[in-house]
Amino acid sequence: MLLTVILKIPPSRNHICLMMAIQRDGVDAVKEQIKEAILENFDLKRLGFDTSSTAVIKIADLGCSVGPNTFFVMENIIEAVELKFLQAKNQNLAALEFQAFFNDHYENDFNTLFKTLPPSRKYFAAGVPGSFHDRLFPKSSLHLAHISYALHFLSKVPKEVVDRNKSNVFNSSEKEVVEAYSTQLESDIECFLNARAEELVPGGLMLILAGAVPDGVPISDTVIGVCNDVMGSCLKDLVKMGVLGEEKVNSFNVPIYLVTPTELEAILRTNENFSIEKMEKHVQPMKKPLSPEGYALAVRSSLDAVTRNHFGDEFAEQIFNHFNTKVEPNFSKFQGALRNSLNLFILLKRI
Amino acid sequence: MLLTVILKIPPSRNHICLMMAIQRDGVDAVKEQIKEAILENFDLKRLGFDTSSTAVIKIADLGCSVGPNTFFVMENIIEAVELKFLQAKNQNLAALEFQAFFNDHYENDFNTLFKTLPPSRKYFAAGVPGSFHDRLFPKSSLHLAHISYALHFLSKVPKEVVDRNKSNVFNSSEKEVVEAYSTQLESDIECFLNARAEELVPGGLMLILAGAVPDGVPISDTVIGVCNDVMGSCLKDLVKMGVLGEEKVNSFNVPIYLVTPTELEAILRTNENFSIEKMEKHVQPMKKPLSPEGYALAVRSSLDAVTRNHFGDEFAEQIFNHFNTKVEPNFSKFQGALRNSLNLFILLKRI
Repeated sequence: MLLTVILKIPPSRNHICLMMAIQRDGVDAVKEQIKEAILENFDLKRLGFDTSSTAVIKIADLGCSVGPNTFFVMENIIEAVELKFLQAKNQNLAALEFQAFFNDHYENDFNTLFKTLPPSRKYFAAGVPGSFHDRLFPKSSLHLAHISYALHFLSKVPKEVVDRNKSNVFNSSEKEVVEAYSTQLESDIECFLNARAEELVPGGLMLILAGAVPDGVPISDTVIGVCNDVMGSCLKDLVKMGVLGEEKVNSFNVPIYLVTPTELEAILRTNENFSIEKMEKHVQPMKKPLSPEGYALAVRSSLDAVTRNHFGDEFAEQIFNHFNTKVEPNFSKFQGALRNSLNLFILLKRI
Repeated sequence: MLLTVILKIPPSRNHICLMMAIQRDGVDAVKEQIKEAILENFDLKRLGFDTSSTAVIKIADLGCSVGPNTFFVMENIIEAVELKFLQAKNQNLAALEFQAFFNDHYENDFNTLFKTLPPSRKYFAAGVPGSFHDRLFPKSSLHLAHISYALHFLSKVPKEVVDRNKSNVFNSSEKEVVEAYSTQLESDIECFLNARAEELVPGGLMLILAGAVPDGVPISDTVIGVCNDVMGSCLKDLVKMGVLGEEKVNSFNVPIYLVTPTELEAILRTNENFSIEKMEKHVQPMKKPLSPEGYALAVRSSLDAVTRNHFGDEFAEQIFNHFNTKVEPNFSKFQGALRNSLNLFILLKRI
């Protein structure tokens, strides 16, 4: 069993709530970094905003899910841009207008996203459905794009992995699996960057927040690795108990791959349309450690949709019930793996 | 009983399916008019598209509902714009890009809209939630806007009508009610035009398709008038039968008002930001006349959401069941009123 799935329902940030729970503090902490990045790098002159005429700034959040984090981030970015204009003293803030594009897969719940938009927001809101591995916006139509904990979603499970279709538990010793995933991610990020290169104006900024695996640490020693192991053994149990068919379990795959900082930097450097302005690593301790129940809940909300989609509602229920019994005995593994959580903050500029 | 409702769920084009059923043929027929209007009035030079550089054309459909009509109209508009560029011989069509904004109320089903977007579309799609009586887009960010059979939705039931809160059936002899509705529509269209005046670039086009009441014809002789009468007597029956409370029925109002062409033209002429380039009346016979069952179904889909919202699911079911028994005896009235269906095609240009 490899804990990856070919999705009919494409993944969204909802599916990685465990990562989110761990990295929510990272999102908070990054507020200042975003502000600083914009103040230092949002070049009003190059972007054509150096006159006193009215200005419309267009911002996209890619893989936004349903909020409220996406609204929080959008507000952050807008505050920083306003401050930049204020510092430049060449613009009446009242003459600034913002258009915010919230993007996620077609299956994202845009209805909920729209209904929960902050009523007193400073921007004109729009939802944009589609994969961020493809073009989503007209050329040169964005000044800023942001992607938070979503770049690790692959556009698909690599063919080599699908073809294996054999029971195995994801760990870093599965060299050919790791390589297939790594190659897929490299190709996906290349598609992502090429699409954004068309959409961002010259001088436009791309803010990337990403979870990563520290260099030299095997996947099996990370929270996702432990989660995969426990879920894997849980599914094996259910096959033995005759609840699930082996074939069904063997074809269950999740298209997620966490890079190392070195790996990601190498991929980013190959794209000639962007300069890397910042790449910072943060080991972010959680403010409140998770309890076993917290892990069980977080894993459930991470994998609920993909599991239901693959196994059906009834079996998904049995899988999570069985998983819950396995969290407590593996609690020290989960806790230990937290030490290997790494956040990356990256700022790219469209050349 | 006045057949108007204060909506928690704001109206969308879904609620006027009866009109839609009657006017669908109008939508088809208007295809050529849209093409002609764009070829004659989409001024590439004034819009800044007179060079051979790449161009991004931004189009909004306001009050789009969930499709497929909105996709059909968007495709129409894009084909006409492409033809215009082709005729001008100054643009490589491959260098044209289109961004299509689909707008409707927050309660519209954008999830369905997004999932049913044509896969091979020529445009980058975005959904924009909110009332078209307010600003929806940044200033000067649209080249074309389209609104089809939606301008008759009022932003609210006029206060004077709400305050009456007394049992009455809508007809044109209720002068104070008609005047309150007419005043509300005038104010709403003014808000609509002022918002669009900010959003459309100079030279930008506003295409309006609207249902109307022929000058001199009382509302009671139109399909909506007959529908209101029948629904009104249906609700009165249910009060007598003790099924519905009188108070509940008295407070049931639908924020819809159909103008006469003269009334609409007068409102449009007061706005100094737009010139009226075209205003054409069409009496559009239906290709297939509706059966009594067809009317019952059409009325149900028109009023289903507002009725459920006001009376609750269970009572709404009883209301429509009773309504169905009243369609056949009133069939000749419905058929007769069809003669008083009028479509308006209006083209405004941002000055």
